[in-house]
Amino acid sequence: MAKDLQSTVQAFRSFTRRMQDYREAIGVLGWDLRTGAPKKGRTQRSEVIGTLSTDLFKMGISGEMKEFLVELSEPDTYEKLDPITRGIVRECKKQYEKSQLIPPQLYQEYVVLTTKSETAWEEARKKNDFAAFHPYLEKILDYNKQFIDIWGYQGHRYNTLLDHYEPGISVETLDLLFADLRTKSVALLQAIQDRGQATDASFFEKTFPVDDQRRFSEFVLRKIGYDFEAGRLDQSAHPFATGLNPGDVRVTTRFHPNDFRSALFGSIHEAGHAIYEQNISQELIGTLLSEGASMGIHESQSRFLENIIGRSHEFWTCFYDDLSEFFPEQFKRVDLDEFYRAINQVQPSLIRVEADELTYNLHIMLRYELEKALIGGDLAVADLPAAWNEKMKDYLGIVPPNDADGVLQDVHWSGGAFGYFPSYSLGNIYAAQFEAALRRDLPDYKESIKRGEFSAIKSWLNDKIHKHGKLLEPKEILSSVTGESINSKYLVEYLENKYTMVYGL
Amino acid sequence: MAKDLQSTVQAFRSFTRRMQDYREAIGVLGWDLRTGAPKKGRTQRSEVIGTLSTDLFKMGISGEMKEFLVELSEPDTYEKLDPITRGIVRECKKQYEKSQLIPPQLYQEYVVLTTKSETAWEEARKKNDFAAFHPYLEKILDYNKQFIDIWGYQGHRYNTLLDHYEPGISVETLDLLFADLRTKSVALLQAIQDRGQATDASFFEKTFPVDDQRRFSEFVLRKIGYDFEAGRLDQSAHPFATGLNPGDVRVTTRFHPNDFRSALFGSIHEAGHAIYEQNISQELIGTLLSEGASMGIHESQSRFLENIIGRSHEFWTCFYDDLSEFFPEQFKRVDLDEFYRAINQVQPSLIRVEADELTYNLHIMLRYELEKALIGGDLAVADLPAAWNEKMKDYLGIVPPNDADGVLQDVHWSGGAFGYFPSYSLGNIYAAQFEAALRRDLPDYKESIKRGEFSAIKSWLNDKIHKHGKLLEPKEILSSVTGESINSKYLVEYLENKYTMVYGL
Repeated sequence: MAKDLQSTVQAFRSFTRRMQDYREAIGVLGWDLRTGAPKKGRTQRSEVIGTLSTDLFKMGISGEMKEFLVELSEPDTYEKLDPITRGIVRECKKQYEKSQLIPPQLYQEYVVLTTKSETAWEEARKKNDFAAFHPYLEKILDYNKQFIDIWGYQGHRYNTLLDHYEPGISVETLDLLFADLRTKSVALLQAIQDRGQATDASFFEKTFPVDDQRRFSEFVLRKIGYDFEAGRLDQSAHPFATGLNPGDVRVTTRFHPNDFRSALFGSIHEAGHAIYEQNISQELIGTLLSEGASMGIHESQSRFLENIIGRSHEFWTCFYDDLSEFFPEQFKRVDLDEFYRAINQVQPSLIRVEADELTYNLHIMLRYELEKALIGGDLAVADLPAAWNEKMKDYLGIVPPNDADGVLQDVHWSGGAFGYFPSYSLGNIYAAQFEAALRRDLPDYKESIKRGEFSAIKSWLNDKIHKHGKLLEPKEILSSVTGESINSKYLVEYLENKYTMVYGL
Repeated sequence: MAKDLQSTVQAFRSFTRRMQDYREAIGVLGWDLRTGAPKKGRTQRSEVIGTLSTDLFKMGISGEMKEFLVELSEPDTYEKLDPITRGIVRECKKQYEKSQLIPPQLYQEYVVLTTKSETAWEEARKKNDFAAFHPYLEKILDYNKQFIDIWGYQGHRYNTLLDHYEPGISVETLDLLFADLRTKSVALLQAIQDRGQATDASFFEKTFPVDDQRRFSEFVLRKIGYDFEAGRLDQSAHPFATGLNPGDVRVTTRFHPNDFRSALFGSIHEAGHAIYEQNISQELIGTLLSEGASMGIHESQSRFLENIIGRSHEFWTCFYDDLSEFFPEQFKRVDLDEFYRAINQVQPSLIRVEADELTYNLHIMLRYELEKALIGGDLAVADLPAAWNEKMKDYLGIVPPNDADGVLQDVHWSGGAFGYFPSYSLGNIYAAQFEAALRRDLPDYKESIKRGEFSAIKSWLNDKIHKHGKLLEPKEILSSVTGESINSKYLVEYLENKYTMVYGL
């Protein structure tokens, strides 16, 4: 590498390292705000977060950044860069182009709109009043359509939004993936309902002291490989994981004294996200690649751990005795198989976040189709509630009694996050593909789970997925791990096998 | 105000507001690091703190700041400013002049030196090896002397350092203040020792469950006016208070299962600092004046609450029944008077941070005299341990058996904080002056303490001291509250009265 180029690279690396430092600081402030910051200081704290976020944003679209990108992304030069620098250039370029094309005035208006809109949504949901939210949603869609025009698009206009959350995924891909998944899921749900075997889950309605729940969550997290020297478990209104740096990846959960499932599966889910980020390669620390490859790949890790591992019979073969020791009274008349069936109960329900593994994807597909139609101009906001209810009936066989439990249930649209929902099902799809690859590489991995041995599984995930951070794109990870491109075959197989076992279909 | 000036003021205010936002962010990161950040993430977190601190420092000495200061501190203009803007200009100017005069290279060397020196000090203390610390201390002193030459000085060279921590305080003032305080303290100590009345404090050597200690600390803090909606109490290795903004001022303490005094008085002390910052005027929020007036004034608030209030007979007349309810077994054979005497036991000891109210100031005066001699060139580092031991014998009548418990006990010098120690005793001096003023304004305040009524005292402190933040300088506060300038008369009186009561002199 020529001397000049070397010094540009060095300057670029320290410029982007500073950006990553800001991201980390903002992350700590956000975690603090959600886990215990005193309420009277919050307004001023939001101001602080705003200041740092603005400064970070400005660095990303600065003249300095532009000069770096012009020089370093010139094809001959780009080829000469080391892989990490190349990855950082790629990500900065994407962000630069996305941000810099939007006139600042327009973007500012949009930020103000989404802030107001989130408050309007909260009110509308509380009062079950879609009409009150309607004008906000209309405007948010208008801005998003304007942005798409500015950014440009290939094929469907929705593709541009999808690409922000899951690079490389398009409407064409999703339509294919989801068509099969939807038909098979609906059929499977029908079969379960026809089987008519009720699952008894009433034993969950007991009292589970919060301290014991916390200790049990910690016990399980430790066993499955969450490193408490590089993280901590706290309580928050909504569970989340936040990767500040690979040595500090925190998880939260919430404790319901009358049901331990929410805290336990919530913390296993978040630990899936966290174990991912705790194991990002050391050489990526302090770079902008020190995070997950995409929303979908991230979600694959949380869902793999929560569902494929955490709700498996093998997992509870290992942990059910421990659980019974923590809560001897609550489970004294329940055997392992009853417990396993209860945590895998399938039941069409109105609310996405409470849905089981099977019906969850149907909730997502419904949202995907509505978003696509709204962005594509094939559905008017006024017709949205009716379209929602109709799809609920088609896919899940139930119709929300009101909009609060229907079209108004999710925060996403009020913040403008169109294109985000598919990541959840992509996570499930990736997870099942990874599981098939894991089974091929470690054929007896389910036996190790029974024995409480997770280290081989964790090493496999670390090596195949985690260590790369955002260095590789989702499709590169997928193809290097599985040798295939994205497909829903493995998820369908997984669901069919699982519910055959749970419900004896 | 002319249109032009108005817009400069506005720009200056938003420029310095951004600086304050950075300070707040750095504060949150620091709190997090000291209360529970996972250990594996700390190296990278220090990097983040370094980045934000550097950026904040650069704003303070930037060309933009220079232009603001040139325009706004021009006498005619300065006069026209509102008091808050004037205060911010004053503080920024002080900081600008201090920082900008030091060549960056020299400052950088010094930062590296102090970092290494703190590690060297830790090692040296552990191994009781002053010689190993000697070269570091020598160099740190050399840099400080160089800085003083650059900054300039009036009278004694040490004055320049003093002024950083306590504006307006000089060697001349301290020598006067301390001369009387030292003579009277030594005499009082002699009288107590001659009295020969042993205090029984053995009942503290019982087991005090940490959870009960925490609940009792919270109970007391709530009663004395610490607002838990604008703060929180956590545990850390060394107790501290940190004012992030007036709506978020956090305190920490440490819990020893075998002695509740450290946690309780530690948290009352920190609550004194915190109640100060929680009650800074709303109009100062987000400005660089949103902090205490000086180290000494800050310390006066913590010591007032911890000692003058928290170790008073009236305070325990109110709280002793509560304490006995929290710890019924531990205190069942101890009456209020015995307890009062025990928490006010006087005992010359080697370690400053464990010293009682009377001997504490002697520890400070010893350090002050040694610092002054070192900076003034009247004492060589090689002669420091002997000088330390000699003064210990003179003032406290005891000689450290080793340097670890003598000259090596404090972290301050290893970080270059020469000029800081006097603040502790200035805090005691101010506190006693404030107490006299409080007694004049609210003659029955001690009666209200007995009844657990703290609101009138708190309002008085809020109004006289707290609300001003850093808007007023220490001497302005002192003179507006007490009508006098600084003097040690009230502290001497307070100590004489107190120990006459405790020891029946």
